[in-house]
Amino acid sequence: MTTRIPAPQGIASCKIPARILMGPGPSDMHPRVVAALGKPAIGHLDPAFVQMMEEIKVLLRYAFQTGNSLSFAVSGPGSVGMETCFVNLVEPGDKVVVCRNGVFGGRMIENVQRFGGTAVVVEDTWGEPVDPQKVADALKAHPDAKALAFVHAETSTGAQSDAAALVGLARERGCLSIVDAVTSLGGTPVLTDEWAADAIYSGSQKCLSCVPGLAPITFSERAVACVRTRRQKVPSWFMDLGLVLEYWSAPGGKRTYHHTAPVNSLYALHESLVMLRDEGLENAWARHRLHHRALKAGFDALGLRFVVREEARLPQLNAVHVPTGIDEAAVRKQLLERYQLEIGAGLGPLAGKVWRFGLMGYSARAENVNLCLGALADVLSGQGIQADKGAALAAAQAVYTGNQA
Amino acid sequence: MTTRIPAPQGIASCKIPARILMGPGPSDMHPRVVAALGKPAIGHLDPAFVQMMEEIKVLLRYAFQTGNSLSFAVSGPGSVGMETCFVNLVEPGDKVVVCRNGVFGGRMIENVQRFGGTAVVVEDTWGEPVDPQKVADALKAHPDAKALAFVHAETSTGAQSDAAALVGLARERGCLSIVDAVTSLGGTPVLTDEWAADAIYSGSQKCLSCVPGLAPITFSERAVACVRTRRQKVPSWFMDLGLVLEYWSAPGGKRTYHHTAPVNSLYALHESLVMLRDEGLENAWARHRLHHRALKAGFDALGLRFVVREEARLPQLNAVHVPTGIDEAAVRKQLLERYQLEIGAGLGPLAGKVWRFGLMGYSARAENVNLCLGALADVLSGQGIQADKGAALAAAQAVYTGNQA
Repeated sequence: MTTRIPAPQGIASCKIPARILMGPGPSDMHPRVVAALGKPAIGHLDPAFVQMMEEIKVLLRYAFQTGNSLSFAVSGPGSVGMETCFVNLVEPGDKVVVCRNGVFGGRMIENVQRFGGTAVVVEDTWGEPVDPQKVADALKAHPDAKALAFVHAETSTGAQSDAAALVGLARERGCLSIVDAVTSLGGTPVLTDEWAADAIYSGSQKCLSCVPGLAPITFSERAVACVRTRRQKVPSWFMDLGLVLEYWSAPGGKRTYHHTAPVNSLYALHESLVMLRDEGLENAWARHRLHHRALKAGFDALGLRFVVREEARLPQLNAVHVPTGIDEAAVRKQLLERYQLEIGAGLGPLAGKVWRFGLMGYSARAENVNLCLGALADVLSGQGIQADKGAALAAAQAVYTGNQA
Repeated sequence: MTTRIPAPQGIASCKIPARILMGPGPSDMHPRVVAALGKPAIGHLDPAFVQMMEEIKVLLRYAFQTGNSLSFAVSGPGSVGMETCFVNLVEPGDKVVVCRNGVFGGRMIENVQRFGGTAVVVEDTWGEPVDPQKVADALKAHPDAKALAFVHAETSTGAQSDAAALVGLARERGCLSIVDAVTSLGGTPVLTDEWAADAIYSGSQKCLSCVPGLAPITFSERAVACVRTRRQKVPSWFMDLGLVLEYWSAPGGKRTYHHTAPVNSLYALHESLVMLRDEGLENAWARHRLHHRALKAGFDALGLRFVVREEARLPQLNAVHVPTGIDEAAVRKQLLERYQLEIGAGLGPLAGKVWRFGLMGYSARAENVNLCLGALADVLSGQGIQADKGAALAAAQAVYTGNQA
C-alpha cells in the first residue's frame, strides 16, 4: 500500500518561546511540576500508577476541604469537569436555577439545556458577584428546581460570589448545588464540606499551576445518590461517573479499564498537589492575597481602575478597565513581544474594554508583579499615557515590606 | 477562614519506575517527545501556539492520508474521540449498523444508544476481523441505516478488519462510515481518502508514541454537512464540533476561546507527528511489520499461538494464548517486577486466556523484542514450561538479519 498525500515539508520541531503567564490561565508551572510531567509514561493499570491515583484522591480531598469519597480528576479540561457535573446530575425535564454573571454561567446554561433540562436564569451584571437575594427569589418562585448552579470565581470578570450563602439557600430548599471553582481552587477558600456543596469542579491550570487538561471534581453523597437513582442512562459514555469510578475507585481493589488515563498529566497534578499540601492551603490563600495587594497598589499608582468592587474581588484574577484612548490589543501585543508577558483580554461584553491579569499559583510571586508593573508602565507611556513606573514599583514594594497604609 | 480537613501526611513526590511498555498502550515515548512535553506552558491563544496548532492539522492530514479540512486533535483520550464522532453524527432515532468483534465495538454500541440512536449489531467472534458479508447483509436488511461503525484495529484482540471493503459497502448504500483507528494510526495503513471514510478517530498513545490524552480525528465534508444540518443541538457542549472548530479552525483567522487546550500534550503530539513525517508513513508501517515478524518468530520458537489468524493480524498488537497450566497474572507480575516490562492482559471473554504484546510506535524496536522474548522465556521456564530462550532469540535475530525463511 502506498501513500497518496505527500509528507508536508517546511514543518520543524516547534520552538516554544519562554513566556510569563499572567493571563486568566494557564499559569506558570513550577519547575518541579514540569519535571514530574516529563517522567516516562507507565501503564495506567501499573501498581505504581494506581498508588499515585489513590494519593491524588487524598490530596484533592484536602484541596477541596472535603471528606467526599468521590474526589478525583476528570481526564479533560475544566469544561469537561463542568460537563461531567451537569451530564450526571441533570436529566430531561429537570429544572436548574443557573446564575450568570460572566462567561461561565452562560456555559452552564448551555449544559443544562443540552441535557434536556430547563434553566431558570438569575442574571447579574458582569463584574458583580451573584446576588443571593435574587437567588432566594428564584428558588422560591421555582420550588420544583432540582439544583442551583453558579460560578464561585468568574474568570471572565474577576468577581467572587458568596458560595457559602448561595449553597445555603440551595440547601434550605432541598436543592443540589453545582459550583464552578475552576479559578478559585488553591487560590481562595473552597470549603466543600463547610458549605455543604454537592458538586464542585475545577481545572488544573489555574491556581494549582499544573499542566492544562485535567479537571478535579468532588461529589457529595447526596450527589452520588442522585446519579445512582437516575431514570435514564447518562447521555455520555466517557463522563458517566458510574463507569469512571470503577476505574478510579476500585470496589474491592479490582480496577476496571475505562479509558487510558493521561498518565503524565496526572504525575504533574500529583506534584502540584504535594506542593500545595506542603505550603498549606491557608498559606497559599495568603500568598495570593499578598501579591494581589502589591499588584493593586501598583495599578493604583498607574491610575488603573478595577472592574470588580473590592469586597468581591478575586486576588488571583485582576480585571481592570483599559484607559480611554488606548489600543488594548496593541498593549497586549507589545507586552507579549517585548516582555514575553501574557495577559488576558476581555470576553463578551467586556471585550476590548478590560485587561485581565492572573496571579495564579506559581505565577503569584513578586518577580511577576514587578515585571508586570514595569512592563505595563513602559508600554502605557509609549502610548502617551502618564504612567509613573517608579511610583508603581515603589507602591508594590511598600506592600511587600509591610509599609503600606 | 481556616481549613477543617488537615493536610494529609505520608505522601511524597511520586517515584515513577522506568518501564518498558509492551502492552496495548500507552507505548514508550521517544526522548524527543518527552522533551517537547516538558517545555514551559504558553497561552492557548499565543501566536506561537496557534501556529503549532495549524501545523498539527497539516501533519494529521498526512498521518490520516486525507485532505479533510476538519482534522485536529480532540482534548481528551481516544474514548472522547469516539464520543465526539458519535455525539455529532448520531441523533435520536438514527439507526447505526455497528460491528462488534471486541471491546471497542461494544463501546460504540453504548455510544449510539446513549445518544438516542438504535444500534443494529453485527457480531463476529473475538479475534476474527469483521465479516464484510454480514455487514452487506445488515445494510441490505436496514436500508434506513444512517451510518456504519466499525473498529479498524481491535486493541482487545489484535484483529484488523478490511476498512476499504467495509467503508465501500457503506458508500454503496449511501451510509456514513465511522472508523476506530485508535491502534492503527501510524502502525498500519489508515487511508482516509482512498477508503472514502467519513469519520475516523485515533489516540495519541499508541503507534504515535505520544503522551496519552489526545484523540486525533478527521471528518469528511459529508460528515461535516451532516453535523451542520442536525435537527437538534449536539447533546454536549464540549464535543460540539461547531463550537470546537471556531477555536481550531479560525474562520477569517479570528479564533474564539472554547476551552483551555492541553498545551503541553499538544507540543508532544506535534513532535511525534514531525517524527512520523520524517520517518515516512510507509517506513513506519514497514518497521511495525518487521518487529512483529521478529516477535512472532520468537513466539513460534516458544510454542506460543496467536489468537488472530495470520492474514488479519495487527503487527502492533500481538495477542497470544496463555499456555495451559500457567498462572497468567503471575507471569505479568513477574515481567513487571523483575524486568520492568509491561504487557497486557485479556479483556472480556479473553480475560485470563490471552496476553497482549504491543509493538507500537517507539516501542516497536529490536531491543524491546529481544528483551521481551528473553524475559518471557525466563519467566515461563520458572513456571515449568519448556521455553528455549536461545532458540527464541535466534529466531528473532534471523528475521532482523534477513535469514528467515
